[in-house]
Amino acid sequence: MTKLVVKCLAVSLDGYAAGPDQSLENPLGVRGPELMEWFFHTRMWRSMQGGDGGETGIDDGIAQQGFAGIGAWIIGRNMFGPVRGPWPDESWKGWWGEEPPYHVPVFVLTHHPREPLVMKGGTVFHFVTDGIESAVKQATSAANGKDVRIGGGVATVRQLLSTSRIDEMHLAVGPVLLGRGEHLFQGLDMHALGYRCDKVVPGERATHMFLRRGA
Amino acid sequence: MTKLVVKCLAVSLDGYAAGPDQSLENPLGVRGPELMEWFFHTRMWRSMQGGDGGETGIDDGIAQQGFAGIGAWIIGRNMFGPVRGPWPDESWKGWWGEEPPYHVPVFVLTHHPREPLVMKGGTVFHFVTDGIESAVKQATSAANGKDVRIGGGVATVRQLLSTSRIDEMHLAVGPVLLGRGEHLFQGLDMHALGYRCDKVVPGERATHMFLRRGA
Repeated sequence: MTKLVVKCLAVSLDGYAAGPDQSLENPLGVRGPELMEWFFHTRMWRSMQGGDGGETGIDDGIAQQGFAGIGAWIIGRNMFGPVRGPWPDESWKGWWGEEPPYHVPVFVLTHHPREPLVMKGGTVFHFVTDGIESAVKQATSAANGKDVRIGGGVATVRQLLSTSRIDEMHLAVGPVLLGRGEHLFQGLDMHALGYRCDKVVPGERATHMFLRRGA
Repeated sequence: MTKLVVKCLAVSLDGYAAGPDQSLENPLGVRGPELMEWFFHTRMWRSMQGGDGGETGIDDGIAQQGFAGIGAWIIGRNMFGPVRGPWPDESWKGWWGEEPPYHVPVFVLTHHPREPLVMKGGTVFHFVTDGIESAVKQATSAANGKDVRIGGGVATVRQLLSTSRIDEMHLAVGPVLLGRGEHLFQGLDMHALGYRCDKVVPGERATHMFLRRGA
């Protein structure tokens, strides 16, 4: 059965999953990239950049696992790009170049309709204007029995957590204090929502926490 | 030079350092003891209870370290006991029996004066009514070059963090989602206050995070 999963969501020690003041120059918010340090060192990340090298090990293995068995993605509009309001034209095609790392359908939440965008390597961006539940339905259907990965951003993850829609969540907690930004859990009673932690795996540069609904 | 230190402060994955609704029956708040699971299994804890056994290992070693080099403690009144308002008599002598595990002076923050309380084994409870800075001053003097450990509760730790008074802080993050309770960092910009994480140590039942001011 298709599960809704969050993988490799980087969180600071003080609970922020993105820095403040997201912009074209700071797509992860100010100091957001510090959260991703663990990921930037992996062989997985290097290969996503079309390069060689990078570290193998626990962090890398978990990063690889994050892409395994995923049949579709859902991402918020800010994760797709910095464009706000109606699409001025078709020129923005995501942050990832001609061949994005998804290789499956990706459902982008937006208020502004746009034709599907077919990229190299199997990624197709679908723009969903009728709400997150519709995106879940479409992505689940497209996933064809595999899992649907919620790519973020934080608001999208929080919205789905608030109704206990996410089945599994992997957090990569880094040795960073952000102090400001988008807090992952504030105002969400994760215990009452049915979530439990069932595994903690120390990696080279992050502590991996695995949560599960109803565990 | 004497440092103000926090040791072995147990925190949930979602950032709570105590459960809600503290009372005589629930001195750590509802579900608070789940935060302390890592500690309850240590040989250190067992020996504090006057017993044998318990696990040795990383968690135990870090728990032992928490008592090393400490010349005085500061604790909030709720950590001393459930009594509220003026002391009705001298009968409440703390949660710890005749011989508390401190063995040094302990400064208790309270609005209500009381004579110092001399216990077995070197622990003396001093009741400080003129504010936290006075307690810091008295404890620093009593520590005689050793460190002053801030024993809690959460409100006391937060008050000292908010003015960057704490030099070092060790958090034991457990695989628990509390959902409600006393949040450690909410509303505190730990980065702006000058704190950095300089070490993460995976233990058997908790992940130990070491923060330092100005690191």
